[in-house]
Order: sequence, then C-alpha cells, then structure tokens
Amino acid sequence: MTTIGVVGLGYWGPNLVRNLTENRHCKRVLVCDKDPLALERATNRYPSAVPFLRYEEMLADPQLQGVMIATPINTHYDLARKALTHGKHVFVEKPFTSSSDQAVDLISLADVQKLIIGVGHTFVYSPPVIKIRDIMERGELGEIFYISSTRVNLGLHSKDHSVIWDLAPHDLSMIMYWLGEAPVEVTATGKDFVQKGIPDVAFLNLRFASGAIAHVEVSWLAPSKLRRTTIVGAAKMLVYDDTEHLEPVKLFDKGVRFKDPDTFGEYQLSYRTGDIISPKIESFEPLQSEVNDFVMGVTQRRNPKANGEDGLRVVQVLEAAERSLQRSGQPEKIEDVKSWI
Amino acid sequence: MTTIGVVGLGYWGPNLVRNLTENRHCKRVLVCDKDPLALERATNRYPSAVPFLRYEEMLADPQLQGVMIATPINTHYDLARKALTHGKHVFVEKPFTSSSDQAVDLISLADVQKLIIGVGHTFVYSPPVIKIRDIMERGELGEIFYISSTRVNLGLHSKDHSVIWDLAPHDLSMIMYWLGEAPVEVTATGKDFVQKGIPDVAFLNLRFASGAIAHVEVSWLAPSKLRRTTIVGAAKMLVYDDTEHLEPVKLFDKGVRFKDPDTFGEYQLSYRTGDIISPKIESFEPLQSEVNDFVMGVTQRRNPKANGEDGLRVVQVLEAAERSLQRSGQPEKIEDVKSWI
Amino acid sequence: MTTIGVVGLGYWGPNLVRNLTENRHCKRVLVCDKDPLALERATNRYPSAVPFLRYEEMLADPQLQGVMIATPINTHYDLARKALTHGKHVFVEKPFTSSSDQAVDLISLADVQKLIIGVGHTFVYSPPVIKIRDIMERGELGEIFYISSTRVNLGLHSKDHSVIWDLAPHDLSMIMYWLGEAPVEVTATGKDFVQKGIPDVAFLNLRFASGAIAHVEVSWLAPSKLRRTTIVGAAKMLVYDDTEHLEPVKLFDKGVRFKDPDTFGEYQLSYRTGDIISPKIESFEPLQSEVNDFVMGVTQRRNPKANGEDGLRVVQVLEAAERSLQRSGQPEKIEDVKSWI
Amino acid sequence: MTTIGVVGLGYWGPNLVRNLTENRHCKRVLVCDKDPLALERATNRYPSAVPFLRYEEMLADPQLQGVMIATPINTHYDLARKALTHGKHVFVEKPFTSSSDQAVDLISLADVQKLIIGVGHTFVYSPPVIKIRDIMERGELGEIFYISSTRVNLGLHSKDHSVIWDLAPHDLSMIMYWLGEAPVEVTATGKDFVQKGIPDVAFLNLRFASGAIAHVEVSWLAPSKLRRTTIVGAAKMLVYDDTEHLEPVKLFDKGVRFKDPDTFGEYQLSYRTGDIISPKIESFEPLQSEVNDFVMGVTQRRNPKANGEDGLRVVQVLEAAERSLQRSGQPEKIEDVKSWI
Repeated sequence: MTTIGVVGLGYWGPNLVRNLTENRHCKRVLVCDKDPLALERATNRYPSAVPFLRYEEMLADPQLQGVMIATPINTHYDLARKALTHGKHVFVEKPFTSSSDQAVDLISLADVQKLIIGVGHTFVYSPPVIKIRDIMERGELGEIFYISSTRVNLGLHSKDHSVIWDLAPHDLSMIMYWLGEAPVEVTATGKDFVQKGIPDVAFLNLRFASGAIAHVEVSWLAPSKLRRTTIVGAAKMLVYDDTEHLEPVKLFDKGVRFKDPDTFGEYQLSYRTGDIISPKIESFEPLQSEVNDFVMGVTQRRNPKANGEDGLRVVQVLEAAERSLQRSGQPEKIEDVKSWI
Repeated sequence: MTTIGVVGLGYWGPNLVRNLTENRHCKRVLVCDKDPLALERATNRYPSAVPFLRYEEMLADPQLQGVMIATPINTHYDLARKALTHGKHVFVEKPFTSSSDQAVDLISLADVQKLIIGVGHTFVYSPPVIKIRDIMERGELGEIFYISSTRVNLGLHSKDHSVIWDLAPHDLSMIMYWLGEAPVEVTATGKDFVQKGIPDVAFLNLRFASGAIAHVEVSWLAPSKLRRTTIVGAAKMLVYDDTEHLEPVKLFDKGVRFKDPDTFGEYQLSYRTGDIISPKIESFEPLQSEVNDFVMGVTQRRNPKANGEDGLRVVQVLEAAERSLQRSGQPEKIEDVKSWI
Repeated sequence: MTTIGVVGLGYWGPNLVRNLTENRHCKRVLVCDKDPLALERATNRYPSAVPFLRYEEMLADPQLQGVMIATPINTHYDLARKALTHGKHVFVEKPFTSSSDQAVDLISLADVQKLIIGVGHTFVYSPPVIKIRDIMERGELGEIFYISSTRVNLGLHSKDHSVIWDLAPHDLSMIMYWLGEAPVEVTATGKDFVQKGIPDVAFLNLRFASGAIAHVEVSWLAPSKLRRTTIVGAAKMLVYDDTEHLEPVKLFDKGVRFKDPDTFGEYQLSYRTGDIISPKIESFEPLQSEVNDFVMGVTQRRNPKANGEDGLRVVQVLEAAERSLQRSGQPEKIEDVKSWI
Repeated sequence: MTTIGVVGLGYWGPNLVRNLTENRHCKRVLVCDKDPLALERATNRYPSAVPFLRYEEMLADPQLQGVMIATPINTHYDLARKALTHGKHVFVEKPFTSSSDQAVDLISLADVQKLIIGVGHTFVYSPPVIKIRDIMERGELGEIFYISSTRVNLGLHSKDHSVIWDLAPHDLSMIMYWLGEAPVEVTATGKDFVQKGIPDVAFLNLRFASGAIAHVEVSWLAPSKLRRTTIVGAAKMLVYDDTEHLEPVKLFDKGVRFKDPDTFGEYQLSYRTGDIISPKIESFEPLQSEVNDFVMGVTQRRNPKANGEDGLRVVQVLEAAERSLQRSGQPEKIEDVKSWI
C-alpha cells in the first residue's frame, strides 16, 4: 500500500486520480494544482484525495512515494527533477521531456537515487497493441518490412509545440514496442498552416537497423479522425484501426512469393491471399493497467513497462524529426540510447 | 472521321482498341503487336481492327493520323519518336517517358511538326476528379493547405521500374490538375523489399510555390486496396475514396478559425463542424472520354486535356523522387517546365 | 427548485441519479432500493443523495414532488400507482407498464390528481431523432411510404419478458414520434430459441391509417450490433444509423417519378439520384434532456414530451405484437388510445 | 459437344449467350428473339451465334439439345412446354414459372420425356453461398436458429409482378439450399407505393419444420443497395454481405450458453465472443458455373444443381407469400413438393 501524488489537474490528470483512487494498492492519493478551481473540482469528485496548491508541500508529505506528472510538456523536467531529488519515484506523461538532454539527466538521477521512472506511453498498455506484439513475437508476420501509421483529426492545436510532439509519441512508442528497436534515421516534412511556427501537419519516415522502415502521418487538420496502422511482414500483414470498436485488429494471410522458374526463364512472383482474421481482443482500460504498473513498480522498486529509456527514445526521434522538418526533410541520424546513458 | 493505330496489345492496349472501335469519330482502327498471339486475340475480339506485326508497317498506312502507345515504359520514347517523325499525332500511356530529357525531345519534335501529344493521365478524365476540380475552382475549399494521398494494394510488382513510376503518376497528375501548379521540391523515402533494386513501397512529399504541400504513399505490398485522397483547405475539407462506389467524394464543412480575443488575452482557435455532403457524381468511363479527347484532338489539331507538358511535369517529379529515395530522402528541387522547353 | 426521488438503483437508475444531481432545478435527490448494497453504492458515488430502503418512507418525504421509476417492468404499475396516490408526479422507464389496462388506470389516476406522467422514451430526446423529425416536418421526405428498423445484438436476455418488450419500445416510440400517429394493425413473428417461452428474435410489421407501413426487427441473438432505420418518402429517403458516430443521419436525394408518356404508350418510371447529405447533429446527452423535461414538467405542472399516452400507445403495440406472435403472425388490430381514456 | 439455344435477348439473355460461346462443351449456340434489333445486336457481338426470329424454327433445328429461356416470367411456361414437347432439355430463368401448377406440369412432362430442367437460381452457384453451405454442412454454426436477409435498392420496378417475384427468389433459393428444407408456413406484409397493384416493398417470414425461421426484406424503394444475410446458429453466427468485395462472408465465434447454476439459484446465461474470420472465397463467375452445369447436364442427362423441383419450391413460397400479403399477413401453409409430383 502506497501513497501517490498527481500534479496537474487539467484535462488528463483527473483520469490518473480516478484510476489511483480505484487502485487497491494505493492507500492515499495526493493531488496538486496551482489553480484553486481545478483543485476544488478534483476534491469534489474524489473526496478522499488530499489537495495541495504548492508542489513543494505535496513533495514534503512523508508518506508520498511516487509522483505522476500530467502538466504541460515544458514543465515535465523541472517537476520530475524536484520529485527525484526528494527521493520520489516519478511517472511523466508523454512526451517524457522537451529534450533528450533533459531525459538523460532524469534517467541518471533516478539511477543514482535507485528510483524508478514511468512514462505515459499508454498505447503499450492497450489490448490491441499488446495482441499485435504477441502476433509479431510468435513470428506470424515473418520479417517485418514496413509499418505505416496515420493519426489525424480536426483539433486540438497546441500553442506550445508542434503536432509531432503531440501525436507522434503514440505511434513512435507503439512502433518501437512492436519492433523492439529504435530507429537509426528519421526524415520529416510538414507545415505550420494555422499558427505560424507550430507545424500542424507532418509526415515522418523512420529507418531501422533491422531493415524495416516506418511512416507516420500526424495532423490536427483533417476532416475525419483516422487511427490506422498497417504492418507488412514477409509472411502476413496486419491492420490496426483504433476507431474500429468491433474489429480493431485484422490479420491478413497475404504475401508475395518468389516462384522457382520452371524453365531457365525468369523468376516469377506469386501473390498469396487467404483468410482474414479479427482476433478477439480483451477489453480493459489501458490507463488502469498503466497506473497499476506504476503503483506496483513503486512498491516493488522495478521499472514499469514504459520507462525512462523508452521515454528518451521517443524524445530523440521527436527532436530529430523536428530538426529534419526545419531543414525541408533532410535525413537526421539518431544515436543509440545506450551510448548516452 | 480518322484512322488511329494502337501499339501494344498487352494488358491495357485492348481497352484503347475497344474504345476506339466504339468511337464514332474514328473510322478505322489499326492494331500492332510483335506477338502474333496478342494480335490474333485482338482481331478475334475486334474483327474490324487491321492487324500489323511490324510497327513501321502500321506507320506506313497512308490514312493513319494518330498512334496510341500502350507498351512498356522503356519503349515509349522510341515508338513515340518514330510516330512523330512519320507525321503522326501520338498518345502515350503514363508515365509519358523514362526521363524528362526524352519528354522534352518529344514535345519539341511535336511542336516543330505541328503535331499533338496526349498522355494517359486517365484520372483527369474521371468524374469524381473533375467534380473535385469544380469544387476547388469555385473556391469552396478556400486556400489549399495540403493533400494527402494513399494508393496501395497487393501486387503487381513490375520488374522494370519502381512503384513510384507505376502508381505515383495517378496521384501526381491529379494533384497538379487540381492545384494548377507543379511542385518545386520533392523528397521520397521507401525501400525495395521483394525485388532488390526495385522499390515496392515509397512515401513522397511535395512542396508547391503556392505554399501547399502534398504527400503520396504508394505500395505494392499492402493488405488491402486503398485509394484515398484527403484535401484540406482553409475553408472546407474533402475526401476522395476511389474504392467507394456509393460516395466517392465527401465534402466536409469543417475548419479552424481564429477567434478575436474578448479580452487582452490570447487568441483563441475555434473548430467549425457542419454538414457532410456527398455530391452526386456523373457516371461515365474515364477512358472513353480520354480516347475521345485524343481522337477529337487529332481531327481538330488541338492538344488534349492531358498533353505532353503534363506528361513531362509528372516525369520530372518521378525522376526527382527516385533521386531523393536513393539519397535517403534528401530534398530535390524541380525546375519549372517552361524554362526547359 | 424541486425534490425528486429515484426508485431502483440497478443498471439504469444511477444514470437518472447522476443527471438529477447535476440538474440545477433539482434541489434534493432521494434514492431508494430494497438492496442495501445498491443503496450504498449510489450514496458513495452521489454523497448528496438521501437514501431510503423502503419506498413508502421515501414517498412520505414532505418535499418530494416527483418519483422516477427504474425498476423491472412488472413492478412499474404498483410503484407508479403508489406515487400517484401519494400525490407525486411520476416518470416511468420504458416500457411504461405490463399491460394497457395498467397504463389506462395510471393515466386516469394522474388526470384526476392533476399530476403529470413521464415515460422513458429516451430516443425522442436524442439529437439525431429530433433532427429527423425536423426534416420530416418541413416535408423534405414527402409523403412517408415506409420505415424499416433493425435493432439487434448479442445479449442481454431478459428472464421476464420477450425481446419485443425489451428492444421494440425504442423503435415504436421513435416511429410514432416521427409519423405523429399510432399504428392501426400489427403482425409479429419470431421465436424463443435460448429460453423457452421468451422470444429472443422477432419481426414486427405495422400498418398506419395514413397509408404508411413500418417494419421492426429485434433480436438478442445477432453477431453484431445493428441500429439502423431507413425512412423512405415519396420525395427523399433517409438512413439513421445509431452506431455511426461520424454520420448518424444520411439524407438521400433519391426517388422514383412517373414520367408522362411521350406518345400514347405506357407510362415510364424514372429514378432520381442526387446528393447525399449528412446533416450536422447537435451533441448533447438525451438522458440529460429527458430528466430535465421531467423536472421542468414537475415544477411547471405540464406533461413532458414523452408522456403517459405515449407510453400507453407503445404498450398497446407491444401487447398486440405479442398476441400476433403467439398466433403465428395473425394480424392484430390496435384501438385508438383516445377511445380508451 | 452439344447445341444450345437461348430465347430472349433482353437484359439477361446475352449473358447466357456469352457464357455458352465460351463454354468448350457447347459446339453451337442458337439465339432467338422476336425483336430483329435484339437479334442483330446479339449476332454482332457473338458472330458465331445462329439467329432465329421464330421460336418454332429454332426448336426445329435437328442438332438442338437444350433451350435456355430468359424471357418475361409470364412466358416461361409456354416456351418451356414447347421445348419439352420438342424433346429439348430446358433451363428457365428465375422464377421458374408463374404458378406452382405450371411448375408441376413441366416437371411431370420432363419426367415422362426423360429430359432435364434447370432453373436460374444463380446464387447457389456463387462462391460465397457455396462456402457458407460448406461451413454449415460441417456443423460449424451448430443448430440453425434463424436467417435474416435484406435485399433492397432503388429500382427497377417491374410492371408485371411484385417485388416478391422479382427479388425474393434469390433469398429463398439460397435459404433452402443452405437449410436443405423448404418452409412449411409463410407470412408476408408489404405495400404497393409507386404502382397500384404491384407491391414494391415486402417483408416475408418463413417457418421450417426443423424449428428454424427466416425473414426476408425486399424492396425496390431503398436509398442504398443492401444485400445482407445473417445466419444465427446455436454455436456460431455468420454474416454474408454481397456488396462487400473484400470480405463477403464473416464467421463470428459468438454464442450464448447456459451456465450451470453454482448454487441452488437460477440458471445463468453467458455470452461467448471469439475471433471473427473472413474465409478466403474463391473467385469465379457464378453464371459460368451455372451455364456449364446445364450444358453438362444436357450431355450427361442428369439434372443440374438447381432443378425443376427447386424452382417449384421457390414458386410455392412466392405464391403463398403473395396470398398472405393480400390478406394483411395471414399465415399461409405450404405443402410438401413431394406430395405434388
């Protein structure tokens, strides 16, 4: 049984509070926001939560073991650093930090302090995403050729950071989780149509050491919501559509084969088309699983499934993509995280 | 009433023959293929067509006024050149030529000879594509922000050229037709998964002088057929899905607006969402319209809707995209066609 | 400002409690369930709600003005009667009562007591259903020919009443709301596959005095959830799909026309096909609107939009349908409500 | 090698001619229509076909072995009778005849003459329909509970017969093919909206001796084309959507189970939800298979898959449905074919 604090009670923070109050390993929930109204709304809805207007006061709570940070991106680093220096475990919403330097610093600090870091890559806790990983791990897709992902809808424009920092962390965290590797190069193009200086449409291309490539389209300017990821393997292919409630994952028994030339002639390609299967996907709230993973991580002093290094890997790609976009799509190399930390 | 010849009776050529035989401005149809079996199949199906095994013999027919070329890409230039030097108008399937040098040469030759050139950009004759152009021309979408297009399915791998040369001409010709301009820069990434040296998946990004950008995804390796183009304007947005028979075009009355700040505070963005309209689309075969446009162009000595310059513009982008893909996505400039010819 | 009580805190009741606690015209909310656990769950979630284990005690509350009944169907009549005899307004979940005799009795009693009755025909408060009524009222569909509705999914079998009593009230209340009339005849077929004596699949056919007909398919035994209603008018046609979040209502500019025969020959039919429009639908919770309508009805002593007579009309059709189903689909007449009350 | 004649070269007949000319077991194709223009169109398109303006002359051809009849329904009987009396095998488009008396007469005549009868129940030759039969035959769906089918679109109104005779034969022939039995009772409701006396919308309900029931909705007055059949079995469920090219058949591993009550309490129902599978469906033209089945039937003197008795069974249901519709949906019994012939 532990005590966890949530800082930031805007749009997302209350969801963390709800899950913490319902988590049976969490005894007390502290909540913090500098806006008294936000604080009041939260304690009205969750009367057992202990309110704090000042972050330092919450950190001073002697029972507090972990802090979940759900504030704007540019405050992640300072708030996480303070928590770690106070000896508290931290969970930071995605994207982990504003820069990889910040991420490396937090990881080192946590390492020294023997503290854990969780990051809010909620999708890696989502049933269809886990199902896809299972399918890939048992080799059903064969060698992975490429992944193409689209994540677009109308709104909500951020005033602080581009659509890349807002939407791409979802796809990047899933892709790295599935492939088990980080990209070695990224190119990005896109543009700032509505707010000058803040790209609202972007196209990312990733190259991996394994030979796989990936493509991610993100936009705040689209007529309808699309959340569609295609994974093409040498053996089978798969489509994951997060807007499809009935059949979010479809596995296509399709592929191309080289045929042995009968004569001394040319090789032939043949196309194989078999059944399409929508596997049954378990139904649970990813956020509940994510919050529980952090709470259990805190009590057992082990890193959660999505940890600081995963956060860093995503931030590295975001940084590189942003640089590439500023340079009209020039390819940008990405260093291996292991050489950094 | 004119005489038109078709060279190349493989997969596509017979469609040209069918439309020519049914065209009331075309008196005689000549057909040519070096494969006697292909020639026989064609004359069995279209008994009125006059067969030729040798191209030169067909060109020697005194009544022949125009030649439609439906052979592999790498033969387009030679066959078109011969036709033009024999004083025949030419129509060349997409992509026009294997290089922009070839395209420039053919355009110059036709110009000198006062002959016309048509290119097989069939989509610019297609009812939904024309409807979209109408909608854009009357300003309903407002300033165009970006176009994103996906054209993927399983098969048919070419052994001669990449998926870019095979599928992208469709999207490139539509995008230029809609925007009324050619791109000034392109980047492309992709990879050759099945046949080494022949990319089967590619992602193109285009930049236009007007400020618009475009993105094109093409693949021979995809679990299901997608033919989906999104056009985002400042005023409205549009989706064109060529696999949707019932509602191929949907016009979304959606957009983002800056709101005047009430106080001295920050600006606000508001999102507008109104009706969605699927305009009625006329129903005719694009190929019939394309063939008729060439036939009428021949009889009236005027260039068809999709002419040599349009063909050149597409080839320029294909060349630049292929260069960019070889250089990991380096941006490539595209010169204005007018400075070339 | 009024005081409202909710009896029945099973699956649906808590939704009424939530909406009452958030309604600014409702000062106090009383809650009643004979199960202490259900009562505790409700007061934990809505701490301001006043709990009662015994219905009579809640009715004895001097401030109580209205009672909302969310208990099993076979208890509706007794609970509503008691409330009315205590001088309380009542709201009863659908279907209103187990028989039309019961419904007539309640309506008469309320009439005598000058009390109002609301019934839980939630769909007539739903934005797409209201939008469709608007479209029909301004005559856009022309004379209504027929309505065909499908409401099927897997589960949840009731042990007390057939699928007709469970699912058909939704369609029947919508159809009468749209047409502004009750049917004069009904036939029904169906069968009890899983639980003997409790039909889980049924097909209803309604005939109206105006000449319109309607068809309703309901099932607890279906592979996927369908909520689809087609309305065919002489002028236009409309589809309402409640599972479609993006475009729940589609208006088809389609129809058939008699053409004047040019000669002395036969008449000709011509088919007209125009645009398809998905009108923008406002977004609000139907239940909130329904609860507010009852609360305002109580304070202003006026019947809500869906009242006792509407409830009776639905119950009449359910009774007649059940009779027809027992007689292999024999047509059953339905008497006019006005002749009953 | 045989000689087959086609009578009736309107909308459908030319499809039979095409398939006969391409069938390698058919040596000569005779074609007959009293309209010289129709005859000329056919011989222009199929130059090898031998034209006849008069049916009797075609029947007099000594080599003619079988006649395929693609004329209006009310002529089927006379034309088929003449062919049979001339000793020719016959194939009749659906519905077989205008009455079951006519059907019985033709069957008896063929029987006496040792001739075969085929009927144009094309769907029983269609790959998805055959696939579904395979799935059912190996018991994968368990006991069949019910089948619900919708076949609606806008147009084409017949002037001679109701929508029941036009569209329902498709569903009826499929349902009987799948279930392996004919219904014992039918009810039908519907109405004649556009042309008085000719119902254009109808709802049929069928009852089978096995305990299964079926429902068929047919309409010429619908905003969009629907071709959707749901089959619910005790073990699994299936949806067949003929407008879905990618996934026409979906098999749902779904069902309801009685749970043993743990205590002495009530039984419990549990709902099982597993994978959804779209089996690969072979791709061939049903008509080609149907025509070949008749041609082979003629040469081998064996009845085709869809024969006179199948035609009679469908006509029986159509007659009974039409009677029920005239009597507001009164249930109509259907006698067993075996007792008739």
